[in-house]
Amino acid sequence: MTVPEIDPFHTIAISTLAHRQEAEGRDIIHMEFGQPSSSAPQGAIDRSHHILDTDPMGYWESGALKARIAQSYADNYGVTVDPEQIVLTCGASPALVLALMSCFTPGARVALARPGYVAYRNTLRALHMIPVEIECGEAERYQLTAQAIDELDPPPEGLIVASPGNPTGTVLSGEELEAIAAVCRRKGIRIVSDEIYHGLTFGEPAHSVLEYDPTALVVNSFSKYFSMAAWRLGWLVAPYDRLAAVQARVGNLFLTPPSLSQHAGLVAFESGAELEANLETYRRNRDLLLEALPEWGLRRIAPPDGAFYIYADIGHLTDDSLAFCMDLLRDTGVATATGIDFDPVEGRHFMRFSFAVSTELIEKAIQRMKPWFAARTKAAATGKASLDVV
Amino acid sequence: MTVPEIDPFHTIAISTLAHRQEAEGRDIIHMEFGQPSSSAPQGAIDRSHHILDTDPMGYWESGALKARIAQSYADNYGVTVDPEQIVLTCGASPALVLALMSCFTPGARVALARPGYVAYRNTLRALHMIPVEIECGEAERYQLTAQAIDELDPPPEGLIVASPGNPTGTVLSGEELEAIAAVCRRKGIRIVSDEIYHGLTFGEPAHSVLEYDPTALVVNSFSKYFSMAAWRLGWLVAPYDRLAAVQARVGNLFLTPPSLSQHAGLVAFESGAELEANLETYRRNRDLLLEALPEWGLRRIAPPDGAFYIYADIGHLTDDSLAFCMDLLRDTGVATATGIDFDPVEGRHFMRFSFAVSTELIEKAIQRMKPWFAARTKAAATGKASLDVV
Repeated sequence: MTVPEIDPFHTIAISTLAHRQEAEGRDIIHMEFGQPSSSAPQGAIDRSHHILDTDPMGYWESGALKARIAQSYADNYGVTVDPEQIVLTCGASPALVLALMSCFTPGARVALARPGYVAYRNTLRALHMIPVEIECGEAERYQLTAQAIDELDPPPEGLIVASPGNPTGTVLSGEELEAIAAVCRRKGIRIVSDEIYHGLTFGEPAHSVLEYDPTALVVNSFSKYFSMAAWRLGWLVAPYDRLAAVQARVGNLFLTPPSLSQHAGLVAFESGAELEANLETYRRNRDLLLEALPEWGLRRIAPPDGAFYIYADIGHLTDDSLAFCMDLLRDTGVATATGIDFDPVEGRHFMRFSFAVSTELIEKAIQRMKPWFAARTKAAATGKASLDVV
Repeated sequence: MTVPEIDPFHTIAISTLAHRQEAEGRDIIHMEFGQPSSSAPQGAIDRSHHILDTDPMGYWESGALKARIAQSYADNYGVTVDPEQIVLTCGASPALVLALMSCFTPGARVALARPGYVAYRNTLRALHMIPVEIECGEAERYQLTAQAIDELDPPPEGLIVASPGNPTGTVLSGEELEAIAAVCRRKGIRIVSDEIYHGLTFGEPAHSVLEYDPTALVVNSFSKYFSMAAWRLGWLVAPYDRLAAVQARVGNLFLTPPSLSQHAGLVAFESGAELEANLETYRRNRDLLLEALPEWGLRRIAPPDGAFYIYADIGHLTDDSLAFCMDLLRDTGVATATGIDFDPVEGRHFMRFSFAVSTELIEKAIQRMKPWFAARTKAAATGKASLDVV
């Protein structure tokens, strides 16, 4: 057995170039990564000032925060979660690691949607598990279906669900999620559900897998809806039968998340008005992009139900979306993500726009990208794939 | 293959009881865990206030902090480390996970000292690796020797070194560490060195394994010397041949550590006077305990060269150090750690005192414990193992 090779995150190359150009004085618009440009809610910041001055901040696990998170499952989904089932972590990423290593062993087959968040595949590989990718196309709005899971032969041991998903922002209906849970129950497939974009939906709220499967593990964090990405605070909801395994692992492999962030996170729950204002910004940004993109010929997109991403098919413009995104950055100063990070098979025909920035920046980005896409479209139509189209 | 069982951290039961009694109004002295009771340096706190008000804190990796950490290897040990070799993490714990999973695979045998930090053994098990425990007794001052490693047959693939060690605080001499590195080089054993207690030494400074082995991985953090435990900031020094593997894993499994902590950590490097004052407190505490313990009959201890622990043989008083520590807590309000967390074989005869609290509290703890130990010693001498000795 060898230490497995893990794919690089190609969009880091785009971001690195963007930051280098920015350092040289260029005006860059960052739409490459999935993080809010807004800060934490003001109440959370105020609370942090107070804690910094009054608390020596030893290792600590906030019982009040665990209780508040548990309460949110009753409020949002009508399901009962015991505060003891909430395991606090340094963000959603280690929560996913904990979930996978507490349920599956090396060699286990774990299914997931393609396209999907690059770290699912890479984390599984790093843990010597086998990602079983289910191709999810435009017809399925880039999401899993119960039928596709049912058809896997042999059935996998685990399934990663993400709704709203990344890179598409599409959401599973309650009916489909219930049907997925039923298939998994019938076949003994353990579900790990990444619900990190919950709260960020533009129509119906997303359903939690816990409404349909109390044995599922749920990953979530304060990084998206609560706009506290680099505060590194997340959680895992663990079912009773895996709780001891999860707790033993978090206590040995990770310890507690930042004390300051736990204090701040508790206050963030009471900052609804600010957080809803962020959501309204994303809604405006989404609407602007959904109006603009088809005008540029980008018509094959799944209008995002949630999150802050648009995943667009650019197959009529390029066979190499990394080079395409690099060109876009060089020519316009707009940084975006290449589809190959999300889909190793079809991703060279796709790109992702993250719209978690201000509406002013989205308007500026649209102004810059519009003539560029027009020129590319014209060049593609005339068979001229020159790099100097603008 | 099944998800491995991991031992609980038994001292958590002691700490839980201590906190419950504290909540009921009892005056508890916490000597059970290894964390400074002092806060972060004032400069780090001041900087944090400024950042909270001016920076939206997105995902970020501080190049200046990586450079400053790399510089410390030149300053402290005279070795050259490239800033790119510094991988920032949410504390030392995930740095150890990263190191192990980037070098070894499931089934790999990794040697370590017994007694040792409980998480080494448990993290190895969680990663499906095999801990090979080397018994280190009083004669070896509870530390590894090159000879003991050389005698392992077959040789392990990896070795975890910790100097100063936990639970004993004993330090490997430069000569012994060099000899260990030579054995490992000869036998192809990869070293992972936990240097988290560096800076906290009472005689000669501790040596880094990097002085003798540029292919080793080094784990460290801001939790001990810098007194920033729950800020969750640590790092891994990765050798060039494992750097890509480490970076791919940190970027997928963990992301970046808290932005605020990175800003604060950079300032902490310039807070030497405060940090040295903390060290002087530990030195006073250590001297007080080293004077008191033998008077109570605790003579079999390795005087700690560093860290803030004393590991004491209580085999003449008990066969069950967990029950013994629980009794001590119930009777005196002093919380300590049981040896069984550090040594599954001999630990029932040992306990650990952590002295990272104020000198005032150490004096109070000694006053409370002195008559208790006297009564226990008398009871043991007369063959009376009653639980009601005081």
